[in-house]
Amino acid sequence: MKETLLILKIGGNVIEDEETLHSVLIAFSKRAGKKIMVHGGGKKATFLAEKLGIPSVFVEGRRVTDTDSLEVAVMTYAGWYNKKIVAHCHSMGLPAIGLSGADANAIQSVKRPVKEIDFGWVGDPVSVNIQTLAHFLQIDLTLVFCAVTHDGQGQLLNTNADTIASTLAVAFADSFEVNLYYCLDLPGVLRDVSRPDTLIPFLDVAAFKKGRESGYFHSGMIPKLENAFNALDKGVSKVIICGPDSFLVDGGTHICK
Amino acid sequence: MKETLLILKIGGNVIEDEETLHSVLIAFSKRAGKKIMVHGGGKKATFLAEKLGIPSVFVEGRRVTDTDSLEVAVMTYAGWYNKKIVAHCHSMGLPAIGLSGADANAIQSVKRPVKEIDFGWVGDPVSVNIQTLAHFLQIDLTLVFCAVTHDGQGQLLNTNADTIASTLAVAFADSFEVNLYYCLDLPGVLRDVSRPDTLIPFLDVAAFKKGRESGYFHSGMIPKLENAFNALDKGVSKVIICGPDSFLVDGGTHICK
Repeated sequence: MKETLLILKIGGNVIEDEETLHSVLIAFSKRAGKKIMVHGGGKKATFLAEKLGIPSVFVEGRRVTDTDSLEVAVMTYAGWYNKKIVAHCHSMGLPAIGLSGADANAIQSVKRPVKEIDFGWVGDPVSVNIQTLAHFLQIDLTLVFCAVTHDGQGQLLNTNADTIASTLAVAFADSFEVNLYYCLDLPGVLRDVSRPDTLIPFLDVAAFKKGRESGYFHSGMIPKLENAFNALDKGVSKVIICGPDSFLVDGGTHICK
Repeated sequence: MKETLLILKIGGNVIEDEETLHSVLIAFSKRAGKKIMVHGGGKKATFLAEKLGIPSVFVEGRRVTDTDSLEVAVMTYAGWYNKKIVAHCHSMGLPAIGLSGADANAIQSVKRPVKEIDFGWVGDPVSVNIQTLAHFLQIDLTLVFCAVTHDGQGQLLNTNADTIASTLAVAFADSFEVNLYYCLDLPGVLRDVSRPDTLIPFLDVAAFKKGRESGYFHSGMIPKLENAFNALDKGVSKVIICGPDSFLVDGGTHICK
């Protein structure tokens, strides 16, 4: 039987709130098996960019990462948030190591090709250094990933944290029983985002398609769910979309084939 | 015979200049044996603090790290510079991993006790996780350390990069033949800082004491040399103070007992 690998992606809502982060980290540290955390950024990157007078560039409604924005992203994600989380883990007896995709060549990406839109310094993962990461897991280190990768040619790249989580989940699906959790600011996937009591406990592809057609999944949820179904198709054992509270009790929405 | 471990500390002058960094990294990557790099910060931390309106606080002429300054230090050292150097290493075929003292509990510090001056969030190293770091070296990773540590209780601490380099050198002196290099903006220790031709090729304790009394070592050089002699006393095989050019040809000032 394969060993369990828990991969938990946390968003800005968890990182920004000391108490929420603490309770999620406690629950995370108590779970059995090997563990990876992936974090996005909180408000600090936006706040810092504003303070530094770096304009947020959008093309057709989508954010572009120029050179200055990349520096801000690397400083806040790989610097402040990553080290803060790692130090917090150690304070509760969970040995952790912070990683960007550049560290130990953990995740290599390609700069997103310019088609209609040039997204700037944004990377899409192409390879995971499974051997070295498995080595770290074997010596009982919890891996804490930020949303930064590199192209192997010296260029750092801003990379979607959800994608990093699913890329790692798929890469380890052969050697571990991977349980992938996306921790949002909602308790899971809801029929009506304003009503937590409309949580969908189990969601399969058919229901997702139906829900997308009838429009009760909001825009950000669609790529997240597509990521989730894709991970299941590629051998990930379990995908759960939850909130900080539902993570504590192993609730949320279980994604099924 | 013990294996060689090269520890190279580079300063802001090397980090800030792309060409200098590149040539030092090439020379570093070509050296045989296991390798650790320790980097300080460049001008970005000061620039960022100014832009953010964070005042530089000095007490009796010495810098104090308040909460805002710590964030800036962690963002620039552990974030931007560290990941930039690691990505650069990979681009030249040198597998590297960036580390703060918090990562894998690599270096634990204590907050400097308040005596006459409260230095704020400044840490003095007390322990090195030799076992895990040796593990990383054994799988041929080059370690790239920034000047940030933690106290094991969740607090990150700004820590002198020279001290990190000598702490690591001393910690590994039992298991490796450690060669410690401090790479400055001067070619080595000079009798007259304005004249590179006054380089002192070998410097022993007696000559250091004499030089300090007669005043031809400037203030910043004194703690650096004290660190160097201390490392030799504690089993480090070789300590060399050099500049980017003299590092390339293995020149500089050799510190002797």
